[in-house]
Amino acid sequence: MDRALKRYIKGLQGHSHAIWRAMRYGLFPGGKRIRPILTLAAGELFGGKRKDLLPFACAIEMIHAYSLIHDDLPALDDDDLRRGEPTAHKVFGEGMALLAGDGLLTAAFHLLSAPEQMKSLAPKLVLELIHEIGHAVGMAGLVGGQAFDLEAEDKEIDLAMIEYIHVRKTGALILASVRTGARVAGAGSADLRRISRYGEFLGLAFQIADDIMDAQGEEAEERRESGRKEQKKATYPAVVGVVAAKERLKELLHQSEKQLSPFGGAAEPLRAIARYVGRRALRDVRNSTVQEMHP
Amino acid sequence: MDRALKRYIKGLQGHSHAIWRAMRYGLFPGGKRIRPILTLAAGELFGGKRKDLLPFACAIEMIHAYSLIHDDLPALDDDDLRRGEPTAHKVFGEGMALLAGDGLLTAAFHLLSAPEQMKSLAPKLVLELIHEIGHAVGMAGLVGGQAFDLEAEDKEIDLAMIEYIHVRKTGALILASVRTGARVAGAGSADLRRISRYGEFLGLAFQIADDIMDAQGEEAEERRESGRKEQKKATYPAVVGVVAAKERLKELLHQSEKQLSPFGGAAEPLRAIARYVGRRALRDVRNSTVQEMHP
Repeated sequence: MDRALKRYIKGLQGHSHAIWRAMRYGLFPGGKRIRPILTLAAGELFGGKRKDLLPFACAIEMIHAYSLIHDDLPALDDDDLRRGEPTAHKVFGEGMALLAGDGLLTAAFHLLSAPEQMKSLAPKLVLELIHEIGHAVGMAGLVGGQAFDLEAEDKEIDLAMIEYIHVRKTGALILASVRTGARVAGAGSADLRRISRYGEFLGLAFQIADDIMDAQGEEAEERRESGRKEQKKATYPAVVGVVAAKERLKELLHQSEKQLSPFGGAAEPLRAIARYVGRRALRDVRNSTVQEMHP
Repeated sequence: MDRALKRYIKGLQGHSHAIWRAMRYGLFPGGKRIRPILTLAAGELFGGKRKDLLPFACAIEMIHAYSLIHDDLPALDDDDLRRGEPTAHKVFGEGMALLAGDGLLTAAFHLLSAPEQMKSLAPKLVLELIHEIGHAVGMAGLVGGQAFDLEAEDKEIDLAMIEYIHVRKTGALILASVRTGARVAGAGSADLRRISRYGEFLGLAFQIADDIMDAQGEEAEERRESGRKEQKKATYPAVVGVVAAKERLKELLHQSEKQLSPFGGAAEPLRAIARYVGRRALRDVRNSTVQEMHP
């Protein structure tokens, strides 16, 4: 993934150097690359070729990187650190970070529609995938979810509303990552339905896992120490406690993995991703026991 | 144009209401709608159908609206007023304005790839147009130009650099508006080259006209009184004076109109747009005479 992303970001050089550096900073070293890896894994399950899948995977990761840069800005979360490093606006200034986010989002759609990347796919399918990704990161997905989240700040919201926000803010792009891979590979409609359910459960699980990690352990401490300025947002563990959140996480991951059973061993990479999401949030037994006694 | 935009923005309802209102605020009442009108006029010159052209015209105007919302943010120009009304972030807050810009940009690509809008066009052409529009508003165009502009702030820059920035920041999307219309209508390659030169000259003329109006007349006074907090950016009239800027504007508009001569009376709408751009900047004779005596 990193090699492919590097190749693509290199191709964007030769214009304003400052914005290019800010865009690259948003992409590298990057996080877990879960979304693009989902695209590759779902695609390969149905026999997709890596060279067909990579442009989609890269575009999805660029969209994810844009959303983080904008999310970190003072106008939204006002975070000074991300993954232990200064956020883009701390390094390049707010204006350049704003433009770098815009640039990454635009570059993603530019890549998705690039003829040289899509040689072996039908233009109609590529158009449909652009539409689906646009849907997942638009009003009904990422941007709409962010807006709901912002509206909900400092308000009492219930679990249903939290799930509603999660499904949009995080779930939609994870679902689209999975579906895009499967559709590029030409998965049939029954397979697509099944893999979509896998993606839906995984997307919600992913956000709950993130919130659990936020609420406990080293990562939380680290963030408190130097990163996040305030934590006002409603999360699953904040409403039902860490114990119940972990139960819900386990159940979602179980449901997610269950969808993969007809695919046998070929779905092992997708199973591994689900287990990885769970392991990160459920691993710290000592810490979580303490928290479970004082939820 | 307004009817079509209203219809489309209506279809985006049903999610976060706050962001929807901010997006609509960015689109209405709107400005001169020059870009989408160029798409329609260029398309109709080559026999394009309005219903095929409108989705492209709307998407282009949504991209323009996104760029204005983001440009007005404190991180960039920090403008309180646009067209005499409070800017989006003054009404909806910075976070929601940021998201509304993101939402408009995303919605534009979502619309461009919508199957129901593109029924009578070949998917390959639609993909190519998405790619061209993405190019025009990405690193080599709008976003890259904005970044250059930001880098150039408070620096001494020469006329070549100013034109370089203008061509990207303003020219690229105006050129794409013209070309998109012509390509939707199936213009041949010689016609497309000609109409592209029209768009290139017009795009640069448009920005110079804007800067001339900024530098003189009521609009400048109005802005000084209540709107723009600082005017640090290098412009054509600031470097060569209003007189020379007007000469350059006239020459560009002349070159622009000249490209239309083979099309005869059918190109009258495109000629009228060029004349309109000139009239707005050149109209105030008394004022401009005063300025010409003291450049």
